[in-house]
Amino acid sequence: MEVKVARKILNANEIMADQNRKFFKEKRVFVLNVMSSPGSGKTTVLERTLEILLPDVRTAVIVGDVCTTHDADRLANSGAPVLQIMTDAFGGDCHLAAHVVANAVSDLNLDNIDLLIVENVGNLVCPAEFDIGEDARVVVLSVPEGEDKAVKYPLMFRVCDATLLNKIDLLPYLDYDRDAALKFISQIHPEMPIFEMSAKTGDGFMAWVEWLKAQMAKKLS
Amino acid sequence: MEVKVARKILNANEIMADQNRKFFKEKRVFVLNVMSSPGSGKTTVLERTLEILLPDVRTAVIVGDVCTTHDADRLANSGAPVLQIMTDAFGGDCHLAAHVVANAVSDLNLDNIDLLIVENVGNLVCPAEFDIGEDARVVVLSVPEGEDKAVKYPLMFRVCDATLLNKIDLLPYLDYDRDAALKFISQIHPEMPIFEMSAKTGDGFMAWVEWLKAQMAKKLS
Repeated sequence: MEVKVARKILNANEIMADQNRKFFKEKRVFVLNVMSSPGSGKTTVLERTLEILLPDVRTAVIVGDVCTTHDADRLANSGAPVLQIMTDAFGGDCHLAAHVVANAVSDLNLDNIDLLIVENVGNLVCPAEFDIGEDARVVVLSVPEGEDKAVKYPLMFRVCDATLLNKIDLLPYLDYDRDAALKFISQIHPEMPIFEMSAKTGDGFMAWVEWLKAQMAKKLS
Repeated sequence: MEVKVARKILNANEIMADQNRKFFKEKRVFVLNVMSSPGSGKTTVLERTLEILLPDVRTAVIVGDVCTTHDADRLANSGAPVLQIMTDAFGGDCHLAAHVVANAVSDLNLDNIDLLIVENVGNLVCPAEFDIGEDARVVVLSVPEGEDKAVKYPLMFRVCDATLLNKIDLLPYLDYDRDAALKFISQIHPEMPIFEMSAKTGDGFMAWVEWLKAQMAKKLS
């Protein structure tokens, strides 16, 4: 019984995600879904990314949180249009569903936007199950979280197109087995690009942003 | 429609959780539900905790993960009976529900057990919504996750009885505002005990274990 209901909800989400995808294609907007555990540094990664992208790549951001507008407030400092979704308003959802993104998008003017970044709710499980009509998905994983997250949360790493391995500035202070971490990620998603970076120092951002621009060029060409 | 279904599932969970609670009371077992983000250090915290508790406090552990037996393998080294639940077997659930715990418990002999620790799936959202029939709930929050997790994931901090603020050995290398973190937690759950600790160095564990023993004494006296 529960399973049937879950399938219906997921099917409804697929239909809505396809509508979103069609709409984004018409608007010529590339949509990036950014997911991670709570506290992996998604927002700081996006602050750095916006610094590099703006103003050449016209970017808007949708931020999903259970509660608070902290992340949206920080990202709004970049000058990009930022829209906050608080899932507490509709039951504290642990992910962004396609219809929630569709509602949010109706409040944004996408006519002069090339890239829409969606910062999902901090959660390595549920957001991986919900297509929102995006063109690319990335997972931010911070090194203090340990080496084995890819094998413990395999769906997330399977559905993503790249891993942003963040907070490498902390490596000298951690017992972190970098080779093991890279091996675990490759085990779940062979040949997925892994960008090692520090949002604190800015290390490693150029490679990641070049990759993102290449993905955009592929879609928008 | 979706809301009604969700309510039915949550009600069914409440009924099962009450049955668990009654069973645990009969068995004179204290049940601790340990929750956190992925990678906050739950398993290392529990390894340290078991070192202090065993053999005086006879302890068993149930570990919930989406995938892998890494954590259960590590905890089994303590000598405590450890049972792994992999939610991938039933759809990759993002939390442990009461019936899942009931099934697992039927494979454990609780006759000579004083304390059952349930290490929940790493997730700051969903596990907070599912009572499993526990006597106490704690949330492990690691300092690299940032100061504002309590206000961003308020339900988790509201339903928990204590916060274990882990990885304080990393404080010298982070821009961490300790006062802000403590203030955010107190804002959501005034007077909740906060144990600052490092599972790596062992700092701060005695106070936490004393608190846990006091909770157990209250129930089992």
